[in-house]
Amino acid sequence: MHATLIYGERDIRFEEVPDPVLSSGHDAIVRVVAACVCGSDLWPYRGVVPIKEPRRIGHEFVGIVESVGENVRKIKVGDFVIAPFYDCDMTCSNCINGVSTSCLHGGAWGAKDRDGGFADGAQGQFVRVPHADGSLVATPGQPDPALVPSLLTLADVMGTGHHAALSGGVTHGTTVAVVGDGAVGLCAVLASKRLGASRIVAMSRHEDRQRIAFEFGATDAVEERSDAGIKHIKEMFDGIGPDVVLECVGTKESMDQAIRSVRPGGMVGYVGVPNGGAELPIRTLFNTNVGVNGGVAPVRNYIDELLPEVLDHRINPGRVFDLELPLAEVADAYTAMDERRATKVLLRA
Amino acid sequence: MHATLIYGERDIRFEEVPDPVLSSGHDAIVRVVAACVCGSDLWPYRGVVPIKEPRRIGHEFVGIVESVGENVRKIKVGDFVIAPFYDCDMTCSNCINGVSTSCLHGGAWGAKDRDGGFADGAQGQFVRVPHADGSLVATPGQPDPALVPSLLTLADVMGTGHHAALSGGVTHGTTVAVVGDGAVGLCAVLASKRLGASRIVAMSRHEDRQRIAFEFGATDAVEERSDAGIKHIKEMFDGIGPDVVLECVGTKESMDQAIRSVRPGGMVGYVGVPNGGAELPIRTLFNTNVGVNGGVAPVRNYIDELLPEVLDHRINPGRVFDLELPLAEVADAYTAMDERRATKVLLRA
Repeated sequence: MHATLIYGERDIRFEEVPDPVLSSGHDAIVRVVAACVCGSDLWPYRGVVPIKEPRRIGHEFVGIVESVGENVRKIKVGDFVIAPFYDCDMTCSNCINGVSTSCLHGGAWGAKDRDGGFADGAQGQFVRVPHADGSLVATPGQPDPALVPSLLTLADVMGTGHHAALSGGVTHGTTVAVVGDGAVGLCAVLASKRLGASRIVAMSRHEDRQRIAFEFGATDAVEERSDAGIKHIKEMFDGIGPDVVLECVGTKESMDQAIRSVRPGGMVGYVGVPNGGAELPIRTLFNTNVGVNGGVAPVRNYIDELLPEVLDHRINPGRVFDLELPLAEVADAYTAMDERRATKVLLRA
Repeated sequence: MHATLIYGERDIRFEEVPDPVLSSGHDAIVRVVAACVCGSDLWPYRGVVPIKEPRRIGHEFVGIVESVGENVRKIKVGDFVIAPFYDCDMTCSNCINGVSTSCLHGGAWGAKDRDGGFADGAQGQFVRVPHADGSLVATPGQPDPALVPSLLTLADVMGTGHHAALSGGVTHGTTVAVVGDGAVGLCAVLASKRLGASRIVAMSRHEDRQRIAFEFGATDAVEERSDAGIKHIKEMFDGIGPDVVLECVGTKESMDQAIRSVRPGGMVGYVGVPNGGAELPIRTLFNTNVGVNGGVAPVRNYIDELLPEVLDHRINPGRVFDLELPLAEVADAYTAMDERRATKVLLRA
């Protein structure tokens, strides 16, 4: 089969790799229908995370089950399935507690798994999925192909936006500001709307992204950043700031913006992968009673809740994809996102 | 009148100061019945926080109202009142949001207040209280003198322990560990019990403090600290740790212990005044989905809820006082706490 490897900075290749083989008895092989490129894939692409040797890449996919191990009970050959951006058994204490990203037996795509076999990267034609009954969620029947983009967001960005909002405690009547207008930030707007937020400010300076944010439920957009952005946001909320700010970027600057924008006693829900090593300023948090909650989103735990709304067209998070390419043109997808010509690229296998 | 001043490291004096005078129209003068020494008072006492010039000290008191300004409506001369460890109007947005420590018009004891007058330190015979109708809570009638210690804890430590537990999200069935066995840590045990925690581990190596912790509702005590303590705690909870850890010390070591003891997806509720400048390790928090919430406790907002339970003897947080001295012997109270001969000293005026 063919799959995507990253060789180094700005060096993405789609090349022949070994076909995956069932190996643990609890695994499945899935033919990828659609995958995509994540903002976090750009870090190694841009050389921020060094690449020592070529490795598989990609962690978001949906597809059709080709074969299953002899101990797989729930997932069947032919099922259309959504995979989270990691694998997990959904039976350990952490999975049951809702934190499947900390599964005691789980692992990551594109690496040797804790089950002993290799878990393929998602930007390829096939993926061996460890713990298939835990990791995968099958749709009821074959979905309308038009739904594939939204289903694919349940693998990462929609679940991650939802995690930001849940972690921040967004509920009926909450006032929210969202830092970051990438796919995750936009999904955080949509998630906040679903959870009943009364006012949602998208911090965005891109007209096309603002448009999607408004479609998703944003009530306002603020273009300024840093001190000017904080001042503007505070003014909009009684001089003190909104109840919750959702941090969906991961830089020192974005976290600082979030912490200084939220009202005293408010909450920062964060899902931006921390980049740059800046730690959280405890004295500021202490003095203002601002809490910080979030992390790597346990999206598998959220699929059951979000999937019916995608299938019923109540939410349409697939709107975050603004470019679609064949999987074989994956290198162009990276270039488009790196050059900010696309927010998020869907790859059709 | 006489009041306590700190002159420098280990130099506490009880000396004559000017009598307080009503000045804003919204203030009151309270004759102190009882005050106490806080763990945080030991910082300047030990020279950790430098003293540039002699200043008033003390921020916890209960007393009898001597006189009120012409615009005071709720508080009456002769009321027995509890004051929080700061003053606040209880009418601004932050106070209404439950964060009276961020009152837009409030201030601190022993300093010039935002109302223009001086707010006396609490370890004195009289205190001018700004925003008397907001800051003070009157008991219904004169309380039984035996209740004074517990009423005094509502000024700080009991409300602070409650804040730790609330910030950590303690509710019915939550499993909790408490880092710190000072007065606040012990009150955090009591607060967790009140809120329905199913299991409460006191991290304490002092038998006398463990005894109070068990009286307050602790189910277990763990004596080890650091890696050994974390291992012990995790083992007690399915190998992954409790749902919530309450950090009631404020050092780098205690926060580290809290963050590394709690289960993935769990919460650290913290109220220890951050000491030593260590920031929060965002990458660890991110990877484990551990949230951190808390800060300087808005105890004024909690008095209404906790006071009836003190008056009914349902909770007895005054047990944290293990030494009582006349106010004039305040210097001895500091020495006793500094030398760890006492957990918390009550000063009778």
